[in-house]
Amino acid sequence: MPDLIQRQDSDHIARLVLNSPQNYNALSTQMIEALAQALRQIGDDDSVRVVVLAAQGKAFCAGHDLRQMQSARGDVDDGAAAFADLFDACARMMQMIPALPQPVIAEVQGIATAAGCQLVASCDLAVAAETARFGVNGVNIGLFCATPMVPLTRAVPPKAAFEMLTTGEFIDAARALQLGLVNRVTAPDALTDTTMQMAATIASKLPAAIRLGKRAFHDQLRLGTADAYATAGQTMCQNILLPDTAEGMAAFLEKRPPSWS
Amino acid sequence: MPDLIQRQDSDHIARLVLNSPQNYNALSTQMIEALAQALRQIGDDDSVRVVVLAAQGKAFCAGHDLRQMQSARGDVDDGAAAFADLFDACARMMQMIPALPQPVIAEVQGIATAAGCQLVASCDLAVAAETARFGVNGVNIGLFCATPMVPLTRAVPPKAAFEMLTTGEFIDAARALQLGLVNRVTAPDALTDTTMQMAATIASKLPAAIRLGKRAFHDQLRLGTADAYATAGQTMCQNILLPDTAEGMAAFLEKRPPSWS
Amino acid sequence: MPDLIQRQDSDHIARLVLNSPQNYNALSTQMIEALAQALRQIGDDDSVRVVVLAAQGKAFCAGHDLRQMQSARGDVDDGAAAFADLFDACARMMQMIPALPQPVIAEVQGIATAAGCQLVASCDLAVAAETARFGVNGVNIGLFCATPMVPLTRAVPPKAAFEMLTTGEFIDAARALQLGLVNRVTAPDALTDTTMQMAATIASKLPAAIRLGKRAFHDQLRLGTADAYATAGQTMCQNILLPDTAEGMAAFLEKRPPSWS
Repeated sequence: MPDLIQRQDSDHIARLVLNSPQNYNALSTQMIEALAQALRQIGDDDSVRVVVLAAQGKAFCAGHDLRQMQSARGDVDDGAAAFADLFDACARMMQMIPALPQPVIAEVQGIATAAGCQLVASCDLAVAAETARFGVNGVNIGLFCATPMVPLTRAVPPKAAFEMLTTGEFIDAARALQLGLVNRVTAPDALTDTTMQMAATIASKLPAAIRLGKRAFHDQLRLGTADAYATAGQTMCQNILLPDTAEGMAAFLEKRPPSWS
Repeated sequence: MPDLIQRQDSDHIARLVLNSPQNYNALSTQMIEALAQALRQIGDDDSVRVVVLAAQGKAFCAGHDLRQMQSARGDVDDGAAAFADLFDACARMMQMIPALPQPVIAEVQGIATAAGCQLVASCDLAVAAETARFGVNGVNIGLFCATPMVPLTRAVPPKAAFEMLTTGEFIDAARALQLGLVNRVTAPDALTDTTMQMAATIASKLPAAIRLGKRAFHDQLRLGTADAYATAGQTMCQNILLPDTAEGMAAFLEKRPPSWS
Repeated sequence: MPDLIQRQDSDHIARLVLNSPQNYNALSTQMIEALAQALRQIGDDDSVRVVVLAAQGKAFCAGHDLRQMQSARGDVDDGAAAFADLFDACARMMQMIPALPQPVIAEVQGIATAAGCQLVASCDLAVAAETARFGVNGVNIGLFCATPMVPLTRAVPPKAAFEMLTTGEFIDAARALQLGLVNRVTAPDALTDTTMQMAATIASKLPAAIRLGKRAFHDQLRLGTADAYATAGQTMCQNILLPDTAEGMAAFLEKRPPSWS
C-alpha cells in the first residue's frame, strides 16, 4: 500500500503530497492521521523551514470520506461517537497548521471542497492554478460545512463565506484571490514552480525570525490593539537580540549579503 | 393605508418588500416595527426557508425618517427619550436579521443610505443592481452614522468603512462588491431574477442544515479559533445525525437525488 | 538643523510632513518623538479638524533607523534596554493616531517599508501615488516586522499580510488598494490635490460629529455586535442632541445649507 502522504525534502522545504488520487485525496481517518503525523514530524525537524502541501491527481482534496463515514451509521450509537472522533481529529489536525513553527503553503491544482477547502483556508499561504475550484458544499448533501467555516470565515469577508456555505456553489481561482483565500493564481503548468519559488523565498530568510514571526502572527491576530502590541513588542526584542539579526542588520548597512550561522 | 411591508411567499421564500416609496422607504418608527413584526412572524414560520428583503420605488431605503425625528425635538427632554427609543428599536430590529433562523438576502435596486445601508450590511447576503448606491452619509447633516457603522465595519475593511463614514460619499455597486458589502451585481432588469434564483438555491437545501449552519456561522464568527471549532464541531455532530442527512449522504454515494422528509 | 516634522495648517487641516529625506524619513528616536509631539499638539488643538501625514523626498518612510539601532549594540546589555524603549515609544506613537480626535490621512508618494508601512496602516485613511510601494521587509535582514504586523493585520486580509511579512516582497499601490491598505490611488502629480481634497471634504463636516464618530469607530471595532451597538447607540444619542445637529437636520429638510456655530 503506497503512503497516503509523500514527503520530499529539498533545500529546507518539505513537500507533503496527498497521495490518494483514486478517492480525490479524501480526508479519511487514515489520511487525517497521516497528515497529523507528517506535521508532527516536521514540527520537530529544525532542518525544515517551509512546508508545501500539494496533491496528486485531478482534485486537491474532496473533503471527508463519505463512504467511510456512512459505514459508522451501523454502530450502536448510529455513529455518534465515530463522527465526534472524526471531526475532533480533523479539527486538531487543521489547527496544527497555524501552530506549526514553519509556514505552510497550499499548492492547489484542482478542486478543494468541504474539509479540502478548510485545509486550504488553514494554511498560512496558498497558491492556486487557474483550474482550481473552491467550495464548502456539504450543504448540497444536507451537511452544513460548520468546521470548514471556521478557517474560511477567518480568511474571507463574511458575506462571501456565507454565500459559499449556504448555496454550496464553487468559486474559481480568480474569485478566491480577490477574496483572500489564496495569495496567487498561476497557469496550471506554472503552479509548482510558483509555489516552490515562494517557498524558496521564505526559506532564504533567517529561520529564527520566521519562526518567531509566525508564532507572533497567530498570537496577536485576535487581540485588542494594545495587547497585540505588547505581544509583538516582545517578539521584536527577542528577535533583534539574536546574533544573526545583528549580523543581518550590519550586512545591510554595509551593503553586503549577511553571513548567517 | 397600504401595508408598510408587503409579504409574498412562494416556494418557501418569503419576499418582504419595503412599501413606502414616497419617503424612500424611510425607517420610521412604524417601518421599524413593521419590519420587526414581519421578521418575528417569519422566525416562527417553519414553512419559510429563505427571506428576500426588497423595496418599492427608486430608493432601497434612505435611513431614518428625519421629519419624524425632528418632531421629537419639541418634547420636554428635547427628544432625548424618543431618540434613545428609536435607535434602540432600530438596533434590535437589525440584530433580528442575523438571529433569524433563515438566511436573509437584501435585493438592492437603488440607493441605500445611513440606516438603509445598515440594513443591507445586516443581511446575510446582498444582491445589487448596477444602479444601486451605498452611503453612510449622516455626517453630511451633522449626525455620524454610528449605529450603521456596526454592521458596516463587520462587512467591509476598516479603512474603506472609515472613508464612507467620514466623507459621506457614496460608493457604487461595483465597489460594494469589491469591498464585500454585496455578493453579486446585476443589470437592473435581472436583479429580482438573480436574487430569487439565489434564494431558490438556498431553499433547495435541507432546511435543518441551513438553520443549524446559520446559527453556527454567527455564533463562531468572533470567537478564538479553538472555541470556534468547539462550537462548530457540535453543529457538525448534530447535523450529521439527522436522518435526512444520512439520506443525503447515501443518495450522493448512490448518485441519485436525496429523498428528504 | 531643520525640523524633522514640518507642520502647515490651512482651512482646519494640519499637514505634517516628514522632513528627513536624506535617510528616507527613518523613524529614529528623534523622529518618533517629533511625531508624537506633533500629534499631542494637534490633539489639544480644536482648530484642527483633519490631519494629513505626508513626506519629503522619494521615500515616504523607510522604517526604523538601522544605523542608530546598531549603535546601541555596544551598550552593556547589547542594546536590550534601548531596543525595548524604541519599540515601546514607536508603538505608543502609532497608537496615538487612532486615539487622536481628528482623522489622519496618510499621503504616500513613495516607498513605505517596515515601520513606515506600519505608519500607513495606523492612519485612519491613506491615499497613494501609483509610484508608492509597501513592504514589511524586516525579515530580509533577519528582523521580522512583528510590530508593523499589528496594524497591518487589522487593515488587510490575513493571508496577504502573512505573505508580505514572510516573503519581504513589496506590493504596489493597486494591490494595496485591493487589499484595503489604502483608500485611493492617484497619478503622482495628483497625489497632494487628491489627499487635500479628501481632507477638505472631512473638514467641511460638523467637527463634533467627526470626533464622536472617530472615537466610536475605534471603540466598537473589536466588540461583539451587541456591545458594539450599545456603544454606538450612546454615540448616536449624544450626537443628535447637539444643537448643530438639530440645525443640520432642519437645514436638510428645508433644502438649505446648515448654519453651524
